[in-house]
Amino acid sequence: MLPIMEISGSLNMVGYGLATIGPGIGVAMVFAAVINGTARQPEARGALLSTAWIGFAVVEALAIIGIALAFAIQ
Amino acid sequence: MLPIMEISGSLNMVGYGLATIGPGIGVAMVFAAVINGTARQPEARGALLSTAWIGFAVVEALAIIGIALAFAIQ
Amino acid sequence: MLPIMEISGSLNMVGYGLATIGPGIGVAMVFAAVINGTARQPEARGALLSTAWIGFAVVEALAIIGIALAFAIQ
Amino acid sequence: MLPIMEISGSLNMVGYGLATIGPGIGVAMVFAAVINGTARQPEARGALLSTAWIGFAVVEALAIIGIALAFAIQ
Amino acid sequence: MLPIMEISGSLNMVGYGLATIGPGIGVAMVFAAVINGTARQPEARGALLSTAWIGFAVVEALAIIGIALAFAIQ
Repeated sequence: MLPIMEISGSLNMVGYGLATIGPGIGVAMVFAAVINGTARQPEARGALLSTAWIGFAVVEALAIIGIALAFAIQ
Repeated sequence: MLPIMEISGSLNMVGYGLATIGPGIGVAMVFAAVINGTARQPEARGALLSTAWIGFAVVEALAIIGIALAFAIQ
Repeated sequence: MLPIMEISGSLNMVGYGLATIGPGIGVAMVFAAVINGTARQPEARGALLSTAWIGFAVVEALAIIGIALAFAIQ
Repeated sequence: MLPIMEISGSLNMVGYGLATIGPGIGVAMVFAAVINGTARQPEARGALLSTAWIGFAVVEALAIIGIALAFAIQ
Repeated sequence: MLPIMEISGSLNMVGYGLATIGPGIGVAMVFAAVINGTARQPEARGALLSTAWIGFAVVEALAIIGIALAFAIQ
């Protein structure tokens, strides 16, 4: 009897999944820091958020690039 | 019955995905430290950000190099 | 029906991806410590950064060696 | 239709990549502790660094051994 | 068309790589604790280091055993 394996799909999807682990945790760390900072100094929320958007952009970019690469790499 | 496997894609995409885990979390740690530091000393935000850009550059470089290697390594 | 597998790419790219997880998080920890230390003692930023560059060099070296090994190991 | 697989590379490179995750994070923890300690007690930087070099040596050794094993194990 | 697979290397190297993740982070935690303790109580450095060597030995042993097993298990 031969093995019955019905595996389909693409390794690129696995790659994109891996590419979201870091940014997924990372963006959360950035906004968690904003929440903690706002709890300590409520009036500083604006300044903290402006820094957070910079951090969010450079971290999320890694996952967005992963979407493009999933289609580009063959 | 023979195994049915419809796997496609490239291991290089898996490699890029792995290469973003570290920088994705790392860059977030750098900016989270800036946000926490700003919440503690709002007037030090400029000095903290200038250090953060150094850390951001050397960490993000690891992921950017990963994009290049994904196309270079065969 | 025979298996349809269209997998390409190199395991070396997977290896490089793994090799960046540690340094990616590690270098960020070093600079995050500098940022936190600067927020606590702004005048100590120079001494903290000089220690950080040592830590940065020995940690980033692991990823740089990974780039070289990705081409060297067959 | 026969499977089309164009996978190349070496599992040893994957092994080296895994072998750097621990030391990459670990060495960073040691130097981050030095930086945090220096921010708290700037005059103790020498004593902290001497302890850090011990920790650095025994942790980094694991990754250096990985480079050697990547060529030795067949 | 026949499959083109040029995979070389040994799963034992992958095993060694996995075996160093824990000790690499673990030994670093031990020495980071010594450094933090020394920054808080500089005169206790001797007692802290003597405890650290015990922790170092039992944690690093796991990685050293990994080197031996990588050659022993076939």
